[in-house]
Amino acid sequence: MHRNLRSFRFAPLSVRMTLGVFALFAATVQAQTTPDDIVKRELATSRSYETLEVLTDNIGPRLSGSSNAAAAVRWATATFQKWGIPATTEKVMVPHWVRGIEDARLVSHRNQKIFLTALGGSVATPAKGITAEVIEAGSFDELKSLGSKVKGKIVFYNNPMDIDLVRARRSFDAYSKAVVFRSEGPSRAAQYGALAVIIRSVTSASLRTPHTGALRYDAKLPKIPAAAMAIEDAMLIDRLLKKGERVRMHLVLTPRTLPEVASANVIAEIRGNEKPEEVVLIGGHLDSWDLGTGAIDDGSGVAMVMETLRVLKEMNLTPKRTIRCVLFMNEENGLNGGRTYFANHKNEKHVAAIESDAGAAAPTGFRTTLKGDALADLERRAQALASVGAAHFETTAETGADTSFLVEAGVPGFSLVPDPLHYVDYHHSAADTLDKIDPKELAQDSAAVAALAWVLANR
Amino acid sequence: MHRNLRSFRFAPLSVRMTLGVFALFAATVQAQTTPDDIVKRELATSRSYETLEVLTDNIGPRLSGSSNAAAAVRWATATFQKWGIPATTEKVMVPHWVRGIEDARLVSHRNQKIFLTALGGSVATPAKGITAEVIEAGSFDELKSLGSKVKGKIVFYNNPMDIDLVRARRSFDAYSKAVVFRSEGPSRAAQYGALAVIIRSVTSASLRTPHTGALRYDAKLPKIPAAAMAIEDAMLIDRLLKKGERVRMHLVLTPRTLPEVASANVIAEIRGNEKPEEVVLIGGHLDSWDLGTGAIDDGSGVAMVMETLRVLKEMNLTPKRTIRCVLFMNEENGLNGGRTYFANHKNEKHVAAIESDAGAAAPTGFRTTLKGDALADLERRAQALASVGAAHFETTAETGADTSFLVEAGVPGFSLVPDPLHYVDYHHSAADTLDKIDPKELAQDSAAVAALAWVLANR
Repeated sequence: MHRNLRSFRFAPLSVRMTLGVFALFAATVQAQTTPDDIVKRELATSRSYETLEVLTDNIGPRLSGSSNAAAAVRWATATFQKWGIPATTEKVMVPHWVRGIEDARLVSHRNQKIFLTALGGSVATPAKGITAEVIEAGSFDELKSLGSKVKGKIVFYNNPMDIDLVRARRSFDAYSKAVVFRSEGPSRAAQYGALAVIIRSVTSASLRTPHTGALRYDAKLPKIPAAAMAIEDAMLIDRLLKKGERVRMHLVLTPRTLPEVASANVIAEIRGNEKPEEVVLIGGHLDSWDLGTGAIDDGSGVAMVMETLRVLKEMNLTPKRTIRCVLFMNEENGLNGGRTYFANHKNEKHVAAIESDAGAAAPTGFRTTLKGDALADLERRAQALASVGAAHFETTAETGADTSFLVEAGVPGFSLVPDPLHYVDYHHSAADTLDKIDPKELAQDSAAVAALAWVLANR
Repeated sequence: MHRNLRSFRFAPLSVRMTLGVFALFAATVQAQTTPDDIVKRELATSRSYETLEVLTDNIGPRLSGSSNAAAAVRWATATFQKWGIPATTEKVMVPHWVRGIEDARLVSHRNQKIFLTALGGSVATPAKGITAEVIEAGSFDELKSLGSKVKGKIVFYNNPMDIDLVRARRSFDAYSKAVVFRSEGPSRAAQYGALAVIIRSVTSASLRTPHTGALRYDAKLPKIPAAAMAIEDAMLIDRLLKKGERVRMHLVLTPRTLPEVASANVIAEIRGNEKPEEVVLIGGHLDSWDLGTGAIDDGSGVAMVMETLRVLKEMNLTPKRTIRCVLFMNEENGLNGGRTYFANHKNEKHVAAIESDAGAAAPTGFRTTLKGDALADLERRAQALASVGAAHFETTAETGADTSFLVEAGVPGFSLVPDPLHYVDYHHSAADTLDKIDPKELAQDSAAVAALAWVLANR
């Protein structure tokens, strides 16, 4: 009963039952047309992990504009072609930001080293660094009330994640609340004359592990250097300040923003045989931050959506509608891949956009912009997802960054929801590496994406 | 019944009972003479954490020979004196090893950065580094069988901790098995002509976190540079080699060994009023590795033994025997503090030596060299430990590093055993910081050490 009933759709009940019984005995013939069998095949082969292993171990970090990002584009294109799936690239202009020296010391406290990393896009300090007093703000309101006291100082946003939300497996909600200081904090502090900004890394676990991520400068305000400290260092400075001690930091950050680079989205598809002009998009992003090897963010998403095409191809399955895999470039620090794709393809009929960019822990379901009858209908068709624990759909306004342009234009959006408990503990840090991923869970994720794509393409 | 019955010892039974009843009504007068009350006082005041906070936040890392180590000696001496406890220093000559640049890249794999840190005492590579093939050895037998293949290469000891032992809370057994590659590995590899050695960090958890620790060069063999990689990096190289790929690393390590420095043990004591010449030693080590702030290794031990004297002093308690607190210098990379103390004090009568150097998780009991009737007798007297979960004694041959010289000379040894589950996950890494410690658990540890010292000093 969990099978795709597409071939029965117009048959009267008695015939459907007969066909159902027939299908039971002729499973070897009918099997490949059902999402259940896609799931089984995917779990049996479990090759997403091998794909991800090559991407992370043999290419490694893939920040937009880097030679590694270019290598990833070549690798993905060649890999699809090796699998017999035609793939093309779509030119995307991307920023080219390069991390430099990162050194911070508490000159007021025996030159203790502070573990931090520049936020993506940060401007540099002078080469010799700056030395200034650290002033803490727990919120933008507090920053505002500090006002002119901020001038000439390093603003420290002490923005802990809400650990209760994390424990309730609402890590992304906790993340969203805390990450605003990373994106908006630098310019807000610049407004009051701050010299630099350091935030507390947005994570719920740390072994002195700083987490980077993009900032957003306000074009009307001076750009000031910004970095994220490890939780331990944020707690240290917070303790010292709370005891009334004066904390002075020497900070050297020498990142550079080089000229834009021509990079690419990688696009591959299996054309539909009934409505090929209708597209179910499945996507992840090929770029990563530069600290780790981007295994959970978002090598695993890339591996899942690549594997979806591979498994369909190997099972010789042709969907009614086209299933198109898009490996976006520059999700992390610009979203230019998603933006470019939308500019180039907005006139095509996208019937759904599935994005996977939340790691590779065991699947729990999907977020979707669908609701009401449309969602109920999909849930009936997608019952195969239950076998990998991914049959839960939650309606939300937003489902993904790269596909947000499509979704805002009215395309039904979906995003895979792996167990979110530890995702932000690794992502954007050097600890985002292959070993954090369980091959079985990644296979379950891949099966969930493949099955949902199949269902959506055959509605 | 858990109280110290010292004052009743020679009284006939009827008198003891009378006195017992009296004690019940005169608790305010008698209370301070019992280990139970020491425990209660310690738990109520919980000030070890404040002591530790100053040591770790305001001084920070304290590697032997560093100015921070010297500052720690001054601070500890002054702190005892502030508490009204006379303290002296005892000169200890210590090595002065200074970490330098640490940079490793896989030149065979797109220059991927390898997260590593030099082992303590390592010699340097040439300033421009070395570039060589990496060869893996899972054991010394495997190294031997590789023989001449090792020549000119970087030997990678892939020495994972036995995770089952860790889960069984036998972390130190797992540690001992794995750490032999850190201490002996460099010289063993040098024997076969290796250029350098990298080990897998000895830890059961990692967020790309390398762990340092001392190596032991064989004076008869060439000294080669040695470092420890994060687990993630060890797993990466292991995967690449297992797939048959050739792995070449560029390695730069520029540590320096400077001339020996005159440092010190800090010694403070409360003299006994009956047998002052008999000493119960309580000790931890004041030095730490240079990466973290030495909160669990061994700032917490220092805080516990300092607090023991403080609480006795504040309660106006005078033991029968002298309780002497020794804050040893150079436990981590030389043991010169323990060696010097023994040389200077071996003719004094030490009746027990309690060492605390295993972190500050909740206490579970003590390891001791005592056994048989002597241990059974102590267990009866030390029942106050049960209230903090520390009443379990396990007989072992070794109880601590700094006090090993005394224990080998026949002094009964004791070491506090906090829950060992995560100790090695932090120690010797940058993540050994104050936030890893629960103030309540540290207070329980302090109470356990104080109560045991009191019992031993009053037997």
